[in-house]
Amino acid sequence: MTSPQTLDPLVLFMPSGKRGRFPIGTPILDAARELGVYVESVCGGRATCGRCQVEVQEGIFAKHKINSTLDHISPVGAKERRYAEKRELAPGRRLSCSATIQGDLVIDVPQDVQINAQIVRKSPIERVIERNPAVQLCYVEVDEPDMHKPLGDLDRLKVRLEAEWGWEDLLVSQHLLPQVQSILRKGNWGVTAAIHRDLDSSRPTIIALWPGLKNEAYGIACDIGSTTVAMHLVSLLSGRVAASVGAQNPQIRFGEDLMSRVSYVMMQPEGREAMTKAVRGAINDLVAKACREGEVEADSILDAVFVGNPIMHHLFLGIDPTELGQAPFALAVSGEVHTWASELALTINVGARVYVLPCIAGHVGADAAGAVLSEGPHRQDRMMLLVDVGTNAEIVLGNSKRMVAASSPTGPAFEGAEISAGQRAAPGAIERVRIDPATLEPRFRIIGSDLWSDEPGFAEAAEQLGITGICGSAIIEVVAEMYLAGIISEDGVVDGEMAARTPRIVQTGRTWAYVLHDGKQKHLVTQNDVRAIQLAKAALYAGIRLLMEKQGVEKVDTIGFAGAFGSFIDPKYAMVLGLIPDCPLSEVKAVGNAAGTGALMALLNREYRREIETTVKWIEKIETALEPRFQQLFIDAMAIPNRIDPFPNLAAAVPLPERRMATANGESAPRRRSREERAARRARD
Amino acid sequence: MTSPQTLDPLVLFMPSGKRGRFPIGTPILDAARELGVYVESVCGGRATCGRCQVEVQEGIFAKHKINSTLDHISPVGAKERRYAEKRELAPGRRLSCSATIQGDLVIDVPQDVQINAQIVRKSPIERVIERNPAVQLCYVEVDEPDMHKPLGDLDRLKVRLEAEWGWEDLLVSQHLLPQVQSILRKGNWGVTAAIHRDLDSSRPTIIALWPGLKNEAYGIACDIGSTTVAMHLVSLLSGRVAASVGAQNPQIRFGEDLMSRVSYVMMQPEGREAMTKAVRGAINDLVAKACREGEVEADSILDAVFVGNPIMHHLFLGIDPTELGQAPFALAVSGEVHTWASELALTINVGARVYVLPCIAGHVGADAAGAVLSEGPHRQDRMMLLVDVGTNAEIVLGNSKRMVAASSPTGPAFEGAEISAGQRAAPGAIERVRIDPATLEPRFRIIGSDLWSDEPGFAEAAEQLGITGICGSAIIEVVAEMYLAGIISEDGVVDGEMAARTPRIVQTGRTWAYVLHDGKQKHLVTQNDVRAIQLAKAALYAGIRLLMEKQGVEKVDTIGFAGAFGSFIDPKYAMVLGLIPDCPLSEVKAVGNAAGTGALMALLNREYRREIETTVKWIEKIETALEPRFQQLFIDAMAIPNRIDPFPNLAAAVPLPERRMATANGESAPRRRSREERAARRARD
Repeated sequence: MTSPQTLDPLVLFMPSGKRGRFPIGTPILDAARELGVYVESVCGGRATCGRCQVEVQEGIFAKHKINSTLDHISPVGAKERRYAEKRELAPGRRLSCSATIQGDLVIDVPQDVQINAQIVRKSPIERVIERNPAVQLCYVEVDEPDMHKPLGDLDRLKVRLEAEWGWEDLLVSQHLLPQVQSILRKGNWGVTAAIHRDLDSSRPTIIALWPGLKNEAYGIACDIGSTTVAMHLVSLLSGRVAASVGAQNPQIRFGEDLMSRVSYVMMQPEGREAMTKAVRGAINDLVAKACREGEVEADSILDAVFVGNPIMHHLFLGIDPTELGQAPFALAVSGEVHTWASELALTINVGARVYVLPCIAGHVGADAAGAVLSEGPHRQDRMMLLVDVGTNAEIVLGNSKRMVAASSPTGPAFEGAEISAGQRAAPGAIERVRIDPATLEPRFRIIGSDLWSDEPGFAEAAEQLGITGICGSAIIEVVAEMYLAGIISEDGVVDGEMAARTPRIVQTGRTWAYVLHDGKQKHLVTQNDVRAIQLAKAALYAGIRLLMEKQGVEKVDTIGFAGAFGSFIDPKYAMVLGLIPDCPLSEVKAVGNAAGTGALMALLNREYRREIETTVKWIEKIETALEPRFQQLFIDAMAIPNRIDPFPNLAAAVPLPERRMATANGESAPRRRSREERAARRARD
Repeated sequence: MTSPQTLDPLVLFMPSGKRGRFPIGTPILDAARELGVYVESVCGGRATCGRCQVEVQEGIFAKHKINSTLDHISPVGAKERRYAEKRELAPGRRLSCSATIQGDLVIDVPQDVQINAQIVRKSPIERVIERNPAVQLCYVEVDEPDMHKPLGDLDRLKVRLEAEWGWEDLLVSQHLLPQVQSILRKGNWGVTAAIHRDLDSSRPTIIALWPGLKNEAYGIACDIGSTTVAMHLVSLLSGRVAASVGAQNPQIRFGEDLMSRVSYVMMQPEGREAMTKAVRGAINDLVAKACREGEVEADSILDAVFVGNPIMHHLFLGIDPTELGQAPFALAVSGEVHTWASELALTINVGARVYVLPCIAGHVGADAAGAVLSEGPHRQDRMMLLVDVGTNAEIVLGNSKRMVAASSPTGPAFEGAEISAGQRAAPGAIERVRIDPATLEPRFRIIGSDLWSDEPGFAEAAEQLGITGICGSAIIEVVAEMYLAGIISEDGVVDGEMAARTPRIVQTGRTWAYVLHDGKQKHLVTQNDVRAIQLAKAALYAGIRLLMEKQGVEKVDTIGFAGAFGSFIDPKYAMVLGLIPDCPLSEVKAVGNAAGTGALMALLNREYRREIETTVKWIEKIETALEPRFQQLFIDAMAIPNRIDPFPNLAAAVPLPERRMATANGESAPRRRSREERAARRARD
């Protein structure tokens, strides 16, 4: 080994830990680029954009050298001082394009330059997310026109973009042609070009142009849900989320659930156009809202990524979803879509690009693909179950070796529809329920108050908010608590004998019900309500179990519950009801709007687009309607928790009642059996 | 050498002469493809499109074999017979996708399958023009949807296009997404896709889609002139020209010449928009006209190529041309433009693509580039001069070694403007003139009649048409004839002494004029008219001479006169006046609308696009306004023919009068000299 003196200085970048030796005088930015450390730069080393800031750590890691690194980095020069005077340069910060290496260094790349880590939820495998957006800003100073070299304004711009930034064979958006002259002259020949390049196999394109230095560009990541449209507005240069906004999908006025919207399209001559217009309008309203909140101009939004279930996906793109309402549930397009904001009437920069994630199958959409991208079952070895519950449950099960996906027709019960006292999550709705197994008395909480119904002050809160109904999460809890308290049997029958113990068990026609609340309004949990939940949870569990059988596993290692429903339900109650397979309770997690997070990842790094495109191709699609086995699993999953899964983890955590069939007061065991046999026959035919 | 028996059969394709040996049973189409013989096919070998027809020649070229080739080709099979019954298959014609090689063969590729040779003018170097359009039609039969493999309709279409046609990584125009389902179902899963691929470095794109077999696609090639817009409508599959149409550029109402249109843009707030709308409207009108004449639906037009001078180019693309009206004459964009018909509001297929040829310089436009592509100076060793005369003359001089280009401010005199009796070419305009050197009596012809004015019946024709003025070609001729008859001297002065010989010489103020016609209207050729022509021709010649000096040549080998003006003027008179340098008269040719022909070539073969893009980059641009030498050449070129060129070829062909200065009756020699000295001083300053 040569003596340390003859070696070039060693530079270590944190937090990535990448390191390398560089000759004295090398700009820090060049060293970062060479090592693949992502440090942004718009001005191309002119020390004007300030995007390339880094922090120089005090002390030094090479033990044979001593303390201060001040003489290991070049002193602040004229350009850097000018920047610090005009703008702001926090103490300890340097512009990496101007500061040069003079000795061994430890360089911190600040967090606001790296991706904003908290917006992308941690997945079970730790991963460093690097930004690599499809749109990049590049400032150049263009040669003035010269009669001896009559290259056009645009052509001279291209020359500089190639010379300074390495962009070859640039295409140009048509809408810029009429503007290029005035923008160049307005900027006194200094302009910032936004270059879009998504696919490596496509030519990069100039999609926007500003006079002078434009130092910020934004993107939107949007999840178009049947009920809610959610959007992140995020800086493409720093990853900073400027605003996260949401709104109800205005298509609801055409139909609450997906199938009723498909029916609307089928029945109304202008139905498809009206729904496309509605959802695009909602997106544009959200853009305006996000821009207000984030203090961003919509014109600065240059890229947009969308996810959504297949029907929302189709309606957003202007495609008739009728085919999705009937077998063979053919998607018009399943692959990723590259298009332009202007083609979709989006009110962002007129040159902005749009990317839509691929769909997995006719009922497993781009939203499921987004959730996969976010939670990354394909990036790990553990068997992960990913569930997004809505009118259809989208289910993905797998790991890096094999992934299977299906949708299961859960119906709207989990969302509070088809439940006698059911309602959407809104202030006044009951959201948490406990039933005392001894007295059978309930206590509950309503949305808008932190108090339980047996705590002081609750009455005042309830007076103000009203107690308006039971929302999805509470329906799960009340049915599970009724089971744990012995009010309903394993097969879901409300036990009429309990009426002897408490007036809360009341007869309704030929069946019994539980009075959860009796005030201005009376909220019952009826036998029909329990049946509706049983049907929904059986459908979900049967779908999951079918995928487990395809995978040949008896248990899953981890469960991710996506969507709003997943955020509010308690995993314990989900397992008591038998919605989901047995799993250590600590491994059942709400993953929030994972679909939206996936969209955000695809917005900030185009490599994620390639990753999900590739992944979707090898996910095996299972059509539950074509699987005879699904019918049997469905029947077996009707019981509470169910007759398939031994639930060892659940049993260890929660004292479950003894398995017990309905008594004569409810449905008789023989009656139940004959009903089940009829259902099984139907499934076989 | 092995014995002939062991060799595969030899197949010779005519007229290309390409040949090769192929195993027995090889389809003729496959053999053609392998040899690079362009035979079209849309249906992909299903024997339904009929595009791949060839003729099998009787007799055989291998001398050791005998006569009939009937047993050298497979008999007509079931598919081919079905095609022949449904459509038409001329005697001797076979479908090359179905007919297979059974022995040595000579195959004629019919002319309607090759490019229609007569539309592309022969250039000095013989070249075979092969079609390679940027748009190709591909018929495929798509798998029906399958619940087990939930690939979208579009994605299954892509699978077939890759499997059958080799198209990988296809992009899709956004406007097709909402249509793909219904088109596939309407075609019962058989569809024809139009694939656009221009640049090899770009991903191919599906731009249009039809149910079933679509067997024809068209393109337009359009030259946007200041005065006239000309368009060819041509089959992209056969090269057949379906219609060639033209119309006046409606921008004329904003200003006759280019500079007055630029002024209009500068002065009127909505001037640019109005002119862009006018020219696009004219193009759409021409599309409609061409479609009527050619019995083509505008929806079948999938590609469009445009050329035009820089100002027309800019206005068509929606770019403000103001910068082109003042130094440094900066083009907004000089390179080629790739865009979409929908971006330019063209009423052809909504997915159609547009290609605009590159401009050479601020005053040498895409029309000049088109003319270069058509006439091919860069493809030959002879020194070729290419001139397109308008308000500005665009001049290109060179060969395969070096090319130089300039524009010269000829003004509008050659088009009949600024001439006292001048007018546009229209019925009734004098177009040919002869003057008897003995009697000084003229005879002439008018547009709309084939008779000379001294022939019987002319009076009747003139009565009907009127004798309305003198058009551009006649102005050249009358001034040249006045010179040859001795009416004007070498320096262009009308000789007042001639008034003694003929009443046709009359005094007008301080100068003299020649009475060309005296009837209902009186048409004089005045001293001012002669001066205007002298100025125009001096500008043109000086520009040409400047380029000759740059090339270091004293003569050119061949001259191409482009445009309408070039088609009507007689090369002899152009040379007598000294518009053009000396050259064998047989080598001076009108090349018609060479710009439009170049556009057509770029439409039919995308390789020509690459050729002109490359060529334009190495053409040297000369700005006459920056060349002091131009001023001197301009002065020296004022004389008739001029004082620069010895015109040996002209002198051998035409008896020229002795060189002679003006007499005292006209301008004096000293006065002329002092005028020239003043002009030279101005040029030096």
